[in-house]
Amino acid sequence: MAHKIGKQTIIIDGDVGVSSSAAVGSKKEGEGPLGEDFDIINEDSRFGEKTWEKAESKMQELASQKALEKCGFSMADMDFIFAGDLLNQCIASAYGVRGKKVPYIGLYGACSTYAEATGLASVFCDSAAKHCLAMASSHFCSAERQYRFPLEYGGQRPPSSQWTATAAGAAVISKEAGPPYIKAVCFGTVEDLGINDQNNMGAAMTPAAAATLAQFFKDTYTDPSDYDLILTGDLGYVGSALLVELMAKEGYNFHGNYNDCGLMIYDREKQQVECGASGCGCSASVVSGHVLPRIKSGELKNVLVMSTGALMSPTSVQQGETIPGVAHLICYSSEKGNIF
Amino acid sequence: MAHKIGKQTIIIDGDVGVSSSAAVGSKKEGEGPLGEDFDIINEDSRFGEKTWEKAESKMQELASQKALEKCGFSMADMDFIFAGDLLNQCIASAYGVRGKKVPYIGLYGACSTYAEATGLASVFCDSAAKHCLAMASSHFCSAERQYRFPLEYGGQRPPSSQWTATAAGAAVISKEAGPPYIKAVCFGTVEDLGINDQNNMGAAMTPAAAATLAQFFKDTYTDPSDYDLILTGDLGYVGSALLVELMAKEGYNFHGNYNDCGLMIYDREKQQVECGASGCGCSASVVSGHVLPRIKSGELKNVLVMSTGALMSPTSVQQGETIPGVAHLICYSSEKGNIF
Repeated sequence: MAHKIGKQTIIIDGDVGVSSSAAVGSKKEGEGPLGEDFDIINEDSRFGEKTWEKAESKMQELASQKALEKCGFSMADMDFIFAGDLLNQCIASAYGVRGKKVPYIGLYGACSTYAEATGLASVFCDSAAKHCLAMASSHFCSAERQYRFPLEYGGQRPPSSQWTATAAGAAVISKEAGPPYIKAVCFGTVEDLGINDQNNMGAAMTPAAAATLAQFFKDTYTDPSDYDLILTGDLGYVGSALLVELMAKEGYNFHGNYNDCGLMIYDREKQQVECGASGCGCSASVVSGHVLPRIKSGELKNVLVMSTGALMSPTSVQQGETIPGVAHLICYSSEKGNIF
Repeated sequence: MAHKIGKQTIIIDGDVGVSSSAAVGSKKEGEGPLGEDFDIINEDSRFGEKTWEKAESKMQELASQKALEKCGFSMADMDFIFAGDLLNQCIASAYGVRGKKVPYIGLYGACSTYAEATGLASVFCDSAAKHCLAMASSHFCSAERQYRFPLEYGGQRPPSSQWTATAAGAAVISKEAGPPYIKAVCFGTVEDLGINDQNNMGAAMTPAAAATLAQFFKDTYTDPSDYDLILTGDLGYVGSALLVELMAKEGYNFHGNYNDCGLMIYDREKQQVECGASGCGCSASVVSGHVLPRIKSGELKNVLVMSTGALMSPTSVQQGETIPGVAHLICYSSEKGNIF
């Protein structure tokens, strides 16, 4: 049974694992370095819908359908759906699961949502559930007009900005499934070191990422050398460099095994995305489409994924507030049994 | 250990219960029929803050402080915080828990959030946690300007509208605590029967409430006569009447033991709230301040609380979408042991 160790970490005892996962993206994601890893690429970012918001719901539907298809389960086999997105009132998720007849637990963790959903699904599958669907999405066009400017305005993007991925990722988490096995979950605390530039969200999220990662290492008596890959959600170029610095101050040094989903999904030079990618769909699609299959095949053994979220809103920024961040961590492994 | 029975219901096996709870409100809530049951009433709806959004964060802080004070625990004793609100990007909760150094799981379930938070906290306390904080809030002024019109505009309210409660409720859910004991949780599905009038949210949420309640009765082989009180979140006058009708069609008749938090918190005649109250803070404060103490004292024995949420956003309504609803149910009891 799931149990807590140390200050924040939950050990998942049973053989809880990922039955299957799927990633959906659009044109820009398909042209990026991970293009081949997406299950579905739709060149039209409207996905056949009339609005970008509806397109985002469609992406969640496509991702979940594809994930279910891959493991041979149907929506009716799912006990619970854990999902969220960036839109006001999380409408991409709510409309995406409407009429699915599966209990829905709506989440808001900004870009940390994919790990938040996976973490809750893992705890549930280690007790009250057999199968859970965990998913998250984001859309460049719906996010830009909601958080910044209408696209038609053509505002310039500062060098520290990140490009919201038009992507969705879904995973079926199950009891007695895997590889990939889910070994532990570490939900993060809300940290705020005073960044108030909403075009520099990587920096705003980094203290939360560092706090969660350091606490996880302390709770499990492990360090970076115990993992093949340590992945943050979307700190981007500025935030990632900061994380390396902050972790070094805590005595934790990476040995070429650290990367950031926000730096993997696009080619920063060729695709003009400034500091990299962001959005719930970034880590959701990179993990679902690229990382989990490599754990399944055994190419990667022990992997930490930490999705990171900036919890501000345009209103809070206008009211002079700084930007709090949160980061949730999932520890995956290709092998059964206790790894701690 | 928490386990699922039937199609949707999770039985909480251990002695998981409510260690304490607290309710915070403002002037209008203090003048209502339940005014005496609030732990804190602040006549100034800004709660000493510069904006209504910050006031809402303050209300969550006050509610959690008061709840902790009542059971003698500190914030550091909490394993996890489950919280949410109605504001874009759920800023009332995120800023309310900033710097608290407790892992935060952010939720969006519209007005169903209090039951969603309590349900997750209960499942966690039946496995991976000892103490969790569950809370939710809403604020009339922040909600009106976000969902409808700026207050200064002075728009007329149609007769089917509901008044967003300026209130917050918090509960400390613990392993080996109670009464009140938490016996079962039933997370709901997203239902949409085509209502598109955002001034008639009670009607939009009712199909979801009926679906969850009927499923819970089927899963547990119980019926309305097994409960002293069955309480919906905020269906209001129109939605409550509809629920009675829908449940009767399913063969379930209430015997004077059904009520709605939205009809309890204000005096509809004297306080000019049209169809009653709404908002996450409505069921959060009515349950935390009024219902749980009465279960604790034994005045009420078996109680079902079902918070109900309308999952639309102004954007989805403007884009011609109908309004999906969701309802999550918590089964409380004053007595230990299996009640099913």
